[in-house]
Amino acid sequence: MENNVIIQQSQQWMMDGHVESNLSNLMALWFDQIDDINWIGIYWLKNNALLVGPFQGKPACSPLFLNRGVCATAITQKRMQIVNDVHAFKGHIACDSASRSELVTLIKSNGKTIGVLDIDSPCPNRFDETTINLFVTLTDLLNTYLSKETYFPLIR
Amino acid sequence: MENNVIIQQSQQWMMDGHVESNLSNLMALWFDQIDDINWIGIYWLKNNALLVGPFQGKPACSPLFLNRGVCATAITQKRMQIVNDVHAFKGHIACDSASRSELVTLIKSNGKTIGVLDIDSPCPNRFDETTINLFVTLTDLLNTYLSKETYFPLIR
Repeated sequence: MENNVIIQQSQQWMMDGHVESNLSNLMALWFDQIDDINWIGIYWLKNNALLVGPFQGKPACSPLFLNRGVCATAITQKRMQIVNDVHAFKGHIACDSASRSELVTLIKSNGKTIGVLDIDSPCPNRFDETTINLFVTLTDLLNTYLSKETYFPLIR
Repeated sequence: MENNVIIQQSQQWMMDGHVESNLSNLMALWFDQIDDINWIGIYWLKNNALLVGPFQGKPACSPLFLNRGVCATAITQKRMQIVNDVHAFKGHIACDSASRSELVTLIKSNGKTIGVLDIDSPCPNRFDETTINLFVTLTDLLNTYLSKETYFPLIR
């Protein structure tokens, strides 16, 4: 599936229906259609921990605390993380030993960070400019969608 | 992983933590460790429709209405459905064309049906007695776990 088709299909799942169902389907779409990804999912930020939500891939480490790991670093540094080689990232948390590179973007609702989107690849240097741009676009769409939702928190 | 180890590991994810995270991890564990499964997930029953929740596999059909399909039949007949050949099931809904056999169990909280666990296999006749017994045990554990939860509904 071309990137613009992935974006259009994603927008369809942000138009109506139930947010929990839609988020599960978005993770499944991205996992199915974007090459060389072995894990993708959302972690919700709650009480200084990251709690796994909808995802595709092997069982997740959850909760994640904010003192180490790529997802935690995205929260504490308040910015996207691109890790070309997770083995070189001090404090990396390896839930799936197959993971070699990782991208983490910030999920926000009305400007407030409410979690992260975490994407793992079995390939080193998987996250080139095209792929980063795709995930930045998808995250922006998600953040706009989640800014419209009134049912929070999405995790108890 | 042996079936008894799958059961033990599942029980670990029903002991504490957050129910949404735990359900996501249970689907991932079962998808990863039980052979010849191409889709597994929970549909929540709400307002006479089934809404997809945590799952592993290709994007899901959601909502499902109660007039057709194996999941709907489990709800209307109030019992587990074992379909050895989905092509022979009148009104079967094919979300993933790879699916050939299907098992659907009832998810209950304190005796009240709140959804279904839906498992698809790419193999005809996948659900032999051993596998059915495994999923009956896992569903019973899930129903006991969800009977303890006070945070309902799990879908808005």
